Amino acid sequence: MWHMIQLNKRPIGVFDSGVGGLTVARSLRKALPREKIIYFGDTARVPYGNKSKSTIDRFSREIMDFLVEKGVKAVVIACNTASSFSLPFLRNNYELPVIGVISPGIKKAISLTKSGRIGIIGTEATVNSGAYHRVLKRTGGKQYRMFSASCPLFVPLVENRMTSGEITLRVVEKYLTPLKQKRIDTLILGCTHYPMLKKVISECMKGVKLVDSSEAVAEEVRDVLASEDLIVPRNHKTGKMTCYVSDAPDNFKKISGLFLKEKVDVKKAVLR
Amino acid sequence: MWHMIQLNKRPIGVFDSGVGGLTVARSLRKALPREKIIYFGDTARVPYGNKSKSTIDRFSREIMDFLVEKGVKAVVIACNTASSFSLPFLRNNYELPVIGVISPGIKKAISLTKSGRIGIIGTEATVNSGAYHRVLKRTGGKQYRMFSASCPLFVPLVENRMTSGEITLRVVEKYLTPLKQKRIDTLILGCTHYPMLKKVISECMKGVKLVDSSEAVAEEVRDVLASEDLIVPRNHKTGKMTCYVSDAPDNFKKISGLFLKEKVDVKKAVLR
Repeated sequence: MWHMIQLNKRPIGVFDSGVGGLTVARSLRKALPREKIIYFGDTARVPYGNKSKSTIDRFSREIMDFLVEKGVKAVVIACNTASSFSLPFLRNNYELPVIGVISPGIKKAISLTKSGRIGIIGTEATVNSGAYHRVLKRTGGKQYRMFSASCPLFVPLVENRMTSGEITLRVVEKYLTPLKQKRIDTLILGCTHYPMLKKVISECMKGVKLVDSSEAVAEEVRDVLASEDLIVPRNHKTGKMTCYVSDAPDNFKKISGLFLKEKVDVKKAVLR
Repeated sequence: MWHMIQLNKRPIGVFDSGVGGLTVARSLRKALPREKIIYFGDTARVPYGNKSKSTIDRFSREIMDFLVEKGVKAVVIACNTASSFSLPFLRNNYELPVIGVISPGIKKAISLTKSGRIGIIGTEATVNSGAYHRVLKRTGGKQYRMFSASCPLFVPLVENRMTSGEITLRVVEKYLTPLKQKRIDTLILGCTHYPMLKKVISECMKGVKLVDSSEAVAEEVRDVLASEDLIVPRNHKTGKMTCYVSDAPDNFKKISGLFLKEKVDVKKAVLR
């Protein structure tokens, strides 16, 4: 019993290639305010979206080892690319619960679509991995059809604070027009940066429901923790959130305000 | 004497954060066709332009160790960001000649400018490092003035093959209009990717001379090798070029055709 209490008081680990995963951390803070969170952003090696499976697997394993050493009770892969490539591998090789962002996004899209025609946008790596197609097939079966588009300029646009304006609108149109022509009624924003472009994407995709997975992920985390008796006791006050980054913390601190509405501790951690 | 012959037959090491440095490798192949070249592209951690000095120093040191182990006789830092941050450090800590891209670019700009008003564009890291300003002051003195602009979207545009078209033109105008207003007559393309945008940049900066440092770098390499008796003997035939990358070779192979007009061997090398 003592052991159980100790375990559920441990922090939740969250990791991403950089700052984008803070959208997931923010939803977690809202849904589970008493939980402590340890966030890792791999800012020295960001982005992941144009890299190969073997490299992303290696990065994910190194970060996982870091979080396990910090004593986390569960890990959320807040990065769509890492979820697409490395989730099965991490689940098979670590004993604690590992939650990715793909399955929650798919479940939410299934609950929203009427026509069964679902779009997914993400990095090249995420789209080429085929992970969303596989999970949709497994979860929803054959009555759903999925159409995908990779949007490699979206992350640079967001990271350079170009979330609106003429250039951004044109880039959005360039990537999304082919999906529009497929008459999708639901679109999964399959990258943690994309919710920052929600306004421009809605303008371009009028009438299409947009799925921001971060809230769905927070619900999944709560369900998983509950089923494993890992929720922090109700009498605890607000949990602390600490961020670790692999590059110098300054850039991360500067840009994190775009994603997170609270001040957090940011420390440097070099992985080995 | 035997030792000297051995030394000058060794390859030249060239490194960059990714594929961009191939523009420098191409100029080297043209100017010094008999030299063997070992190229390292850090594709697992690309880009460097938004990362901090301490991280770039660490990456540069790791790559330098890799190239030294491969037996190179000299190293060319084909990356402007790594040249801006890590050149003095590498020169102080390794015995072989190390050539960066900044000083050759400055010398060429000085030889071209009439008004003494020189522009420099590069990544955020390159521009914020102030390296170009320092080298201009040291090389040319006070009669020159330098104006800078960082262009963080240029690399993603090039890597996604968007080197022309409406979106690219608008991005170029956004970044370069402030420099135009400074009435520069010469503009240094301070990032190895930017020569791929030369056409659009010229359209926007009519009458301004563009400096692509890669040819100037090749001349500097020839001078340095000659002064240290390190040029490969004249009776040697065309030297081989081998590329190593830290991510899987496929993407590199695909995109290298944009930069290089010959087929090369590409191998994976994980740094430690």
